[in-house]
Amino acid sequence: MTIETTATAQRTSSGPPLTAVVGGTILDGRGGTPLHGGVVLIEGERIKQVGDQSTPIPPEAARVRASGHYIIPGMMDANVHLHFAITPDLLLMYEGQYEALVAEAAQVALKSGVTTVFDTWGPREALTKVRDEIHRGERLGARIFFAGNIIGLGGPTSTDFFPLARTILPKGRADEIDARWEQKVGADLLYMTPQEVRARVRDYIRNGTQNFLKYASSGHTEMQLLAFSDKVQRLIVEEGHRAGLTVQAHSTSPESLRMEIEAGADLLQHGDVTGPVPMPEETMEVICTRQIPCAALLVTRRFLKWNEASGCDPMKTIHRLKDANDRRLIAGGARLLLTTDGGVYPADAGDMPLFAGQFSADDLPTALGEGHFHWLLAAHELGMEPMAMLQAATSNIAHAYQVHHDLGTLEAGKYADLVVLEKNPLEHPSHYRSIAAVMKAGRLIDRSALPTEPILTGRARRPELRRT
Amino acid sequence: MTIETTATAQRTSSGPPLTAVVGGTILDGRGGTPLHGGVVLIEGERIKQVGDQSTPIPPEAARVRASGHYIIPGMMDANVHLHFAITPDLLLMYEGQYEALVAEAAQVALKSGVTTVFDTWGPREALTKVRDEIHRGERLGARIFFAGNIIGLGGPTSTDFFPLARTILPKGRADEIDARWEQKVGADLLYMTPQEVRARVRDYIRNGTQNFLKYASSGHTEMQLLAFSDKVQRLIVEEGHRAGLTVQAHSTSPESLRMEIEAGADLLQHGDVTGPVPMPEETMEVICTRQIPCAALLVTRRFLKWNEASGCDPMKTIHRLKDANDRRLIAGGARLLLTTDGGVYPADAGDMPLFAGQFSADDLPTALGEGHFHWLLAAHELGMEPMAMLQAATSNIAHAYQVHHDLGTLEAGKYADLVVLEKNPLEHPSHYRSIAAVMKAGRLIDRSALPTEPILTGRARRPELRRT
Amino acid sequence: MTIETTATAQRTSSGPPLTAVVGGTILDGRGGTPLHGGVVLIEGERIKQVGDQSTPIPPEAARVRASGHYIIPGMMDANVHLHFAITPDLLLMYEGQYEALVAEAAQVALKSGVTTVFDTWGPREALTKVRDEIHRGERLGARIFFAGNIIGLGGPTSTDFFPLARTILPKGRADEIDARWEQKVGADLLYMTPQEVRARVRDYIRNGTQNFLKYASSGHTEMQLLAFSDKVQRLIVEEGHRAGLTVQAHSTSPESLRMEIEAGADLLQHGDVTGPVPMPEETMEVICTRQIPCAALLVTRRFLKWNEASGCDPMKTIHRLKDANDRRLIAGGARLLLTTDGGVYPADAGDMPLFAGQFSADDLPTALGEGHFHWLLAAHELGMEPMAMLQAATSNIAHAYQVHHDLGTLEAGKYADLVVLEKNPLEHPSHYRSIAAVMKAGRLIDRSALPTEPILTGRARRPELRRT
Amino acid sequence: MTIETTATAQRTSSGPPLTAVVGGTILDGRGGTPLHGGVVLIEGERIKQVGDQSTPIPPEAARVRASGHYIIPGMMDANVHLHFAITPDLLLMYEGQYEALVAEAAQVALKSGVTTVFDTWGPREALTKVRDEIHRGERLGARIFFAGNIIGLGGPTSTDFFPLARTILPKGRADEIDARWEQKVGADLLYMTPQEVRARVRDYIRNGTQNFLKYASSGHTEMQLLAFSDKVQRLIVEEGHRAGLTVQAHSTSPESLRMEIEAGADLLQHGDVTGPVPMPEETMEVICTRQIPCAALLVTRRFLKWNEASGCDPMKTIHRLKDANDRRLIAGGARLLLTTDGGVYPADAGDMPLFAGQFSADDLPTALGEGHFHWLLAAHELGMEPMAMLQAATSNIAHAYQVHHDLGTLEAGKYADLVVLEKNPLEHPSHYRSIAAVMKAGRLIDRSALPTEPILTGRARRPELRRT
Repeated sequence: MTIETTATAQRTSSGPPLTAVVGGTILDGRGGTPLHGGVVLIEGERIKQVGDQSTPIPPEAARVRASGHYIIPGMMDANVHLHFAITPDLLLMYEGQYEALVAEAAQVALKSGVTTVFDTWGPREALTKVRDEIHRGERLGARIFFAGNIIGLGGPTSTDFFPLARTILPKGRADEIDARWEQKVGADLLYMTPQEVRARVRDYIRNGTQNFLKYASSGHTEMQLLAFSDKVQRLIVEEGHRAGLTVQAHSTSPESLRMEIEAGADLLQHGDVTGPVPMPEETMEVICTRQIPCAALLVTRRFLKWNEASGCDPMKTIHRLKDANDRRLIAGGARLLLTTDGGVYPADAGDMPLFAGQFSADDLPTALGEGHFHWLLAAHELGMEPMAMLQAATSNIAHAYQVHHDLGTLEAGKYADLVVLEKNPLEHPSHYRSIAAVMKAGRLIDRSALPTEPILTGRARRPELRRT
Repeated sequence: MTIETTATAQRTSSGPPLTAVVGGTILDGRGGTPLHGGVVLIEGERIKQVGDQSTPIPPEAARVRASGHYIIPGMMDANVHLHFAITPDLLLMYEGQYEALVAEAAQVALKSGVTTVFDTWGPREALTKVRDEIHRGERLGARIFFAGNIIGLGGPTSTDFFPLARTILPKGRADEIDARWEQKVGADLLYMTPQEVRARVRDYIRNGTQNFLKYASSGHTEMQLLAFSDKVQRLIVEEGHRAGLTVQAHSTSPESLRMEIEAGADLLQHGDVTGPVPMPEETMEVICTRQIPCAALLVTRRFLKWNEASGCDPMKTIHRLKDANDRRLIAGGARLLLTTDGGVYPADAGDMPLFAGQFSADDLPTALGEGHFHWLLAAHELGMEPMAMLQAATSNIAHAYQVHHDLGTLEAGKYADLVVLEKNPLEHPSHYRSIAAVMKAGRLIDRSALPTEPILTGRARRPELRRT
Repeated sequence: MTIETTATAQRTSSGPPLTAVVGGTILDGRGGTPLHGGVVLIEGERIKQVGDQSTPIPPEAARVRASGHYIIPGMMDANVHLHFAITPDLLLMYEGQYEALVAEAAQVALKSGVTTVFDTWGPREALTKVRDEIHRGERLGARIFFAGNIIGLGGPTSTDFFPLARTILPKGRADEIDARWEQKVGADLLYMTPQEVRARVRDYIRNGTQNFLKYASSGHTEMQLLAFSDKVQRLIVEEGHRAGLTVQAHSTSPESLRMEIEAGADLLQHGDVTGPVPMPEETMEVICTRQIPCAALLVTRRFLKWNEASGCDPMKTIHRLKDANDRRLIAGGARLLLTTDGGVYPADAGDMPLFAGQFSADDLPTALGEGHFHWLLAAHELGMEPMAMLQAATSNIAHAYQVHHDLGTLEAGKYADLVVLEKNPLEHPSHYRSIAAVMKAGRLIDRSALPTEPILTGRARRPELRRT
Repeated sequence: MTIETTATAQRTSSGPPLTAVVGGTILDGRGGTPLHGGVVLIEGERIKQVGDQSTPIPPEAARVRASGHYIIPGMMDANVHLHFAITPDLLLMYEGQYEALVAEAAQVALKSGVTTVFDTWGPREALTKVRDEIHRGERLGARIFFAGNIIGLGGPTSTDFFPLARTILPKGRADEIDARWEQKVGADLLYMTPQEVRARVRDYIRNGTQNFLKYASSGHTEMQLLAFSDKVQRLIVEEGHRAGLTVQAHSTSPESLRMEIEAGADLLQHGDVTGPVPMPEETMEVICTRQIPCAALLVTRRFLKWNEASGCDPMKTIHRLKDANDRRLIAGGARLLLTTDGGVYPADAGDMPLFAGQFSADDLPTALGEGHFHWLLAAHELGMEPMAMLQAATSNIAHAYQVHHDLGTLEAGKYADLVVLEKNPLEHPSHYRSIAAVMKAGRLIDRSALPTEPILTGRARRPELRRT
């Protein structure tokens, strides 16, 4: 079942076009009672008014009839990696196609109702270009906010990620690739003084248009439990705030999480990950009491079961303990954000030896376009309230990233990013999948055409193999 | 200094065009006294007559004035790998460009005076296509004869070559790549009975148009000193001969060399390599006495010195002992063939970690387009007679591969493959570099335009890195 | 239930003592009808007479009353490694205790009814010493015959076995250890000419008192499918025979097995192992038709099941195919020998990381003292006849090793090596476990005291760990 | 030349024996003008008086005539590892001999004039036992103070040191070995909350008699630039101080060094190591200005040259930068302590593959018994004043470890630990080698007999290899 729109929708030529989404049940993301038979009146890219059925609709407005449907704000994902072709083989195969990869991923997200993504580690140049083109309407795709590098970590071929690449690539090439991510705030910062790090971060902010900062409180390998000292963390947060940016950290251990909180991070990225040990009770309490936005990597029971059967031992422990943390966070009323660490993978990702089969997981949490649905199901399984889930996927994220004046709820003045569902998402999280329409900035998306340039997702994936 | 040709060269339209190379000193490759002021008369692709200055030249013949020059048969290389982009990174970067790689390499060879190459391990499909296109004149390049797979060895990502590739590539992809080389005569043959191997070899011959056979007497890693038993080796040679093909083996140890000789191989491929030990005296004697064509990997003093300073220990020993074998072979009057194991490498090959810097060697023996010049210098250093060197680079190879009715000397009826040198190659081997003109099948080659599709050799090598 | 002996047993002081084992059912190992209520009369170390109840027994003879019991020849194992502490950790921990380790293993075997073992790879010096001491009655233990090194293979720290040791040991120490096994017929022979190998083997035979020869037809790693050429194999066999020694080979692939047979090996060591492929039909036929003694590594269904669940993939395939070969060999009437590749392991061998848990297998085939019982059960499961099983464990081995004049059956003139069982072994193979008494060379063994110097098998295994 | 003592020395039986060292030039370690022809009067274990030639000497006192000699306090080493047999092979070979190893090392130190050592990482039980036995005079050896584990690091087979051991050892054994070092303050503390770490440290202090604390500010591998957060470091220092212990940290990077200083460490252990970057100017200034005791790993020019020629690249950089730091520290007047990280190695340590030849270095800084002489030479080369050097080797260490009431200078009331030199150490550091006598706690040491139980240092090193 698709939704019906009047023929004139989007065609008004004088002044910004008006559109009215009428007749649906509006869940505006603010947590209040649903508004049945409501009207969302849209002028150009933004919402002009949200009201009940008595709301006057100008005659020139196109109408989107949504009776029997449910209207929610466009979903958001607090942590994606739009360029995720970072293993040695993919880096080589898709060299020179960074922008196309980023755009494809943004479209995969949009297609599945995620109208806004926050990219927390990626090549700055390509991300800037695609973000801006999408923003200007020159490309289709989810709205992008990005961080660029994780301050203090290296690029894809560094010891932080896939150093195996350096056993096959000439050093010059590997350095060149890494530099696209690192942008001079890579792992060498770990050897610097607090003031030197501060200067680098300041330059980094000055030289780019990244939307927020992310730094390493712990490193990316299990060995590096801490990356920056308390003092340096505070300086990085300070520099971000001075530039008006929110700041978050990568943390994977109790101490790195505690340090990040004390440093004043605005958002805890995968704050539910505390390695092979449970989150300390005092940290749990701080997160819940102070309502610090916590982007949590929830996984479904089905995934956990798969992982228990297939995963390597350290990963089993980490998932098991993260899951226990998640249950405690939800029970404690923490302010959670939907986060997937999501990316697009090639068709045969399940056989990629570097991942030892983990991309063939049931309910793969990191599959962009699917992962957010798994997240919502997992939240339900872990005891989260339906309305809290909706907010975790929308307004919580907007607030945490301080873009709530434009995004996150259906309110006058905000971007008209919304999803029309056939079934009531408050009844069961699987209903988030019943997407009838996606609107972004007032524009109805032709989801069937997405992605427009399939690379990793195309039917003829890795087609060049057939061309010999 | 370039050579002068009359305006009408190659333009005669009725009947095959006639060309006369006149005035030069002809070294016809048969080993006799040079013919000063001789004439090579060419009709179409082949030589019509070779004679002294009294040879009548039809008036319609185009004339190539070669006074003061030296005319030798087109050079040959008994062992090249036209597709040598077989390391994991290059396999991925140049996926889908096999034919272009092969063609580029054939042009690099031709440009440097090598008019015929024998490719002893490569992807059969691409080699077939390019060989035939060159033969039909649709592509420019050295004349190609090829073996396809080394019977009994695996493809580039197998344990025989770069198994590291399998730590980054999905198995399906790696298998697909290997299959292009293996063509069903890969390493699984080592587990078969003699009769099963015979059947596979027979099918292999039937299904392709390879020009000769190569099999593994030893394996490709230092562990595998023997691959096939005496009995299987004899059957493979028998099958090759039955199909009218010459047969050679890969050998790297005294026993594998001895077995190959006893099995009746027509040509010993790098027969001078006997691992970390000297060639046994009895084998040396058999090779010299029976004049078994022995393709030897001669290297210059300069390379040896570099290798001694830079190489890893096992390679030093192997090179040192090979060199001693070479000196003994030359002193013993063995019938040597110029062989380089040559291929084309990317510009930064010297930094490829898998090769630990060995591509930055002085006088790199395996650099296609240069390696044969190094070989000739090395032969000189090791005491070979000037005329023997010329024959090692031409007629010896033609005889060993049994293509001497068409190639290898400047005689009536053979292809008009020749190189015009400015300086006398019998004086010093460096004079082989003084190429004034290259003619292949009666056609003068525009060397300045080669390669026509630079991939690995282009100025903008690995250009995609600049495109991000 | 233990058997009863008269008080004077073993005490006669003039002339060799006489002992009569009376009243039991004698299964003499020749395959004929069991003799009920028989008498085995023993004089000193050897059997004087085997007869029915009417056999006259000299009054001075000690009597062993075996009514209701079954008397079989002492069991034999065609392949053990008495010093099996060859992993890097054990090599270091038990340095200097080679003889004690060998003796302990010989006692473990004897305790379980195996009165004769054939050690097919071990340190020659220690084996010689312990073998001779046991033979002279100075030490207790199974009768030992040994080969020393596997000609063509390296010692424990070489690439053939545990090269990891060389990442922790100074080269000098590793070389010193390996030399104890290699005795100058190690892996360097693979680079020699046939005549050089022959000379080394001749010296090897001359310098030691090994009882038989074993050489490498295939190498010991999966890469090395062949070690020596046909020609060299024939020379090795020839040298062995010239010295009056039986010769066997290590083979793990169809070709190495075929080559060994053609070279004239007297005994095929684990001839049932053909790697990841089935034994070729023609080889199967040769083995069965020519009744070539084939030492086969039979395993129980229980072990196979364990292996299927726990083993790594390549080992699963190899075991599966070996098992299929075994079934075919038995059905074809091959002359099989009980062989276990058995050794003694430390208590925590199941956790040794180099073996990835394989020593915690159910029905571990290689556990000396247990493995032969598993073998007999496996033979039963695979369809072998009860009498054939008894012969596989006794007379077949004696014949294959050409020690049948002294061993293998209960006949006058042979050593009085026998086992008294409580239950009929022809009824079920598990009855071989019902050992009531073991006699070796006429001497009743006090099994409860074995091993006398427990090292690997002691209650306080690795006791030094408690001593800090 | 040996020094002369009167026959009655050490023989007085009523009351503590009296000894007078007379006639030498006394350098008492306090930095003042040397006292020529001085007297050190010793009663029992302690110094009773230090004075000029007019000092009255009781007639019953034994006399040590030291005319023409130089008397200095016993030397000290701020960082040794008495049990350094921690590589996998040595762990296995010397299992069960911990105490003997510790004692041997303490004797090697004493023999070379080092009367007091501070062991900063070792197995607590063995260290306790040997320290106490030496203290009670039951064993001979340098006076030992020790830390036990480095809080936050694992034992020898952990990822912090030689995880390769875990590829050969059963997990149970490896855990058992590591536990001897870790004593429940191992790497799991890195996952704990500040309060949990504090509790563990408190228990650790309570359960042992270690003399001081050492914790990990950075980890032991190059990956782990930080181990504990600022907060945890402060708590550890607090706990140490509460128990009256000095506290030091292991640091290898600028931030870990800065954090340690801010946490209040009493002594910077190898504070001159800042990884591949120079020590920040601000940290340098703090160390010099506040005179924080800095144990620095000085190396000689000769070692540096060797290292430059032989060492791996990362180590070259680290040594080069450390050396530059050392020069700056000395120029800045920092309070340095002689520290060697010294241990005893087996004779073939230079060939131990895990160390890639680094134990065959010229002027090996970490060779216990030699390293302190190299240190003194290095100090000279780097510009340190002669008197400062003497203090770096004596009183500075005593003060830093807060044992200056008993040790470090030649003053009444302190232990009579002294070294008699033939040549003036203020003239050239090589004169420290001219040891004529060593006295510890009033007792003249028979250096020729040390070590009394040679294990690693014996002529018959690794003798068991000869015993097979």
